[in-house]
Amino acid sequence: MTQALAPQAIVVSVGEELLEGRVLDTNAQLLAGELLRLGFVVQRFLTIGDAPAAFQDLLAEYAGRADAIVSSGGLGPTADDRVRAEAAAAAGVALVDVPDALPQLAELYRRQLHTEPPDHYLAQARVPAGALPLPNHAGTAWGFAQSLGPRTRLVCLPGPPREAAACFFDGGGRADLAARVSAGRRLAFGTFHTAGWTESAVEGRIRDLLERSGNPRMGIIASGRRVTVSVLACDEPGCSAIELLEATATQLRTRLGEILWGRDDETLEGVAVRILAERGQTVATAESCTGGRLAAALTAIPGASDVFRYGWITYADAAKTSELGVPAELLRGAGAVSPETAIAMAEGARRKASADWALSITGIAGPGGGSAEKPVGLVWIGVAGPQGSYAVRRRMFARAGRAAVQEQSVRDALEALRRELLGLNRLPDRG
Amino acid sequence: MTQALAPQAIVVSVGEELLEGRVLDTNAQLLAGELLRLGFVVQRFLTIGDAPAAFQDLLAEYAGRADAIVSSGGLGPTADDRVRAEAAAAAGVALVDVPDALPQLAELYRRQLHTEPPDHYLAQARVPAGALPLPNHAGTAWGFAQSLGPRTRLVCLPGPPREAAACFFDGGGRADLAARVSAGRRLAFGTFHTAGWTESAVEGRIRDLLERSGNPRMGIIASGRRVTVSVLACDEPGCSAIELLEATATQLRTRLGEILWGRDDETLEGVAVRILAERGQTVATAESCTGGRLAAALTAIPGASDVFRYGWITYADAAKTSELGVPAELLRGAGAVSPETAIAMAEGARRKASADWALSITGIAGPGGGSAEKPVGLVWIGVAGPQGSYAVRRRMFARAGRAAVQEQSVRDALEALRRELLGLNRLPDRG
Repeated sequence: MTQALAPQAIVVSVGEELLEGRVLDTNAQLLAGELLRLGFVVQRFLTIGDAPAAFQDLLAEYAGRADAIVSSGGLGPTADDRVRAEAAAAAGVALVDVPDALPQLAELYRRQLHTEPPDHYLAQARVPAGALPLPNHAGTAWGFAQSLGPRTRLVCLPGPPREAAACFFDGGGRADLAARVSAGRRLAFGTFHTAGWTESAVEGRIRDLLERSGNPRMGIIASGRRVTVSVLACDEPGCSAIELLEATATQLRTRLGEILWGRDDETLEGVAVRILAERGQTVATAESCTGGRLAAALTAIPGASDVFRYGWITYADAAKTSELGVPAELLRGAGAVSPETAIAMAEGARRKASADWALSITGIAGPGGGSAEKPVGLVWIGVAGPQGSYAVRRRMFARAGRAAVQEQSVRDALEALRRELLGLNRLPDRG
Repeated sequence: MTQALAPQAIVVSVGEELLEGRVLDTNAQLLAGELLRLGFVVQRFLTIGDAPAAFQDLLAEYAGRADAIVSSGGLGPTADDRVRAEAAAAAGVALVDVPDALPQLAELYRRQLHTEPPDHYLAQARVPAGALPLPNHAGTAWGFAQSLGPRTRLVCLPGPPREAAACFFDGGGRADLAARVSAGRRLAFGTFHTAGWTESAVEGRIRDLLERSGNPRMGIIASGRRVTVSVLACDEPGCSAIELLEATATQLRTRLGEILWGRDDETLEGVAVRILAERGQTVATAESCTGGRLAAALTAIPGASDVFRYGWITYADAAKTSELGVPAELLRGAGAVSPETAIAMAEGARRKASADWALSITGIAGPGGGSAEKPVGLVWIGVAGPQGSYAVRRRMFARAGRAAVQEQSVRDALEALRRELLGLNRLPDRG
């Protein structure tokens, strides 16, 4: 039903580095989500290399078969960036200068390299004749939007993720496509994030909703420690897509209660920083096995300086003692990976930072350093707050690797803080 | 030429959650890299959804046009997992039980859910007749490898990344493909990473190599502050692919000199940790605007605890003073974002950690907090070592966003340390 009504889109990624497995493509995911929100149904992603005619062959295959083709990559300053020229060739037009942009680009090159720019560098400020130029505030390559026949709109963006986003959002690529979707949005899409339960446990609580066929269509997906429920609703006679989405959101809040922590683009660290800022409270961090990742998560949020001021990475036992006042005899006895040390780290950080809250993480990230008693993946999270302190034992899936153990420890610490701030049940011990 | 000689591969990802932008596909990158190492040239990635016939249509399009089609996804226990049945239909055969696997799977289901398994659950232990079953030690869905006509070998893997890897490596998917590549590897591939120069500057130094047509084929790609040169060499009469690759590596070392810091899977933090470990030296970190990312980069490397023991995140001025001994009058005078503060932070961290080296980062990550004199993107990096200390001024591209400014600051700090450790020229001031 959804499929038949909605306009169709193809997402294309261009770059030899993608086909060679050297770079992970994140643009396709971003663009697909945005196209869905605009009301497009994405039919396929295609990734191709830099070989001559690869892009033009693809356009020949898909032009007329989709309402939108959105590509990223192949617009840069080097000789193997062919998307610009091949898009023009597919439309049967020449490349033309973006007014005023070319002299600026040339001047930038001269200033940086003290020589005249080669022509393939200047090509970054050319677009196919008749195309809408899309400015790129994050880089030098202009994007563009261009029609291929009566049905298909082609939007070409640069490859570096920040530049693709710059051209798509601020540069006007998204607006160009939005204007082509018929008035009155047909689809509404939302995602609802939970923490602390397994995918099966979340599914068990909402199975009847998931199995309800038709509209809205729901899905469930786990990534890291986060289990997300997605809802795709479609206009029906007498009920808009948005109304259907919000009715489902209400059902989800009832079913999932306190484990539901956010929606759409929200992050756990964003939620924590927001709640702290609203209350004028602060949090400090004391990390061992996560080596700064918890602080990095909090300081990814603009304005984090209002709520986060001090953090310690006490990787060595001596650092735990000298910087956070963890007693040396405690480290010799209970050990660095213990509830006592987690609590002492958190209390030390809270005291030294004069913060309202402090979080600590101490564990064994692997691959080495595990033992039968304290295996790789064992992590203690300490929480210190106005009402006292405690530690939570968590056991991460060690075979997922060092980075996953570190990342999941950060997620759990943030979730422990969120629950504490909202007065919810504590994160349970596990493993 | 490379293209003509080497066997061709297509990488397919199956899942509605991918097309809806809910999940980032990491399987395609992993599989592409492995295929390249086996000697395949990957022509395309394709991502499709769960709609009936989507996979079979794709096989009809590509069977006979590629030597290998490797897919992940669509093998699970639910009704919309259609890859198994559609692969069998494409080959014109029925699905058959994997010997012994079906009873085990049924027993697992009964034990977990105390009821009889539905047929689409049991389908996870069926493969097309004549296919090689690929066991999956990380999950319940079997993969398989199957021929589609005389040219094409189809390898189908489950979608969850751990399960895809389990079937491909331990399960035998990779070995099945390796046996089909003619003896004697035809391709050799290497990547060469640089820091400190722009993509255009690197290109200018090696333009003649890049433009030399034929064999080896070279490319250049920028991501973050890292510019990478890739080299894909192919056997020639009288010269093996490996020999061609190494000859090019020698040329690159001559042309790029000290900016060439690593090869293939190496990272800047990995290089820094390795050099420090070889010398038995240590480094401490003191971060303001990067909020823990520099320490997180170092502690991503297994065994980092030998060289990294102490880190501070002194986001607030008071923290810089109380934890690192930065004089309060210096912060009031020169300010937090200044060479004096960067040096004082690094020296304080080096002294308190009793470390051989210390790195500090203080700057304005944005989006707020900038001024005409100290704009968003201005960053001072401090280096303290056995021979004294100094600060480097860097100006990040602010419009790329907060995360980019933070990430690039970390890269520059690591590069400053690498140059110092190797006695190379200091990272120059910029901006």
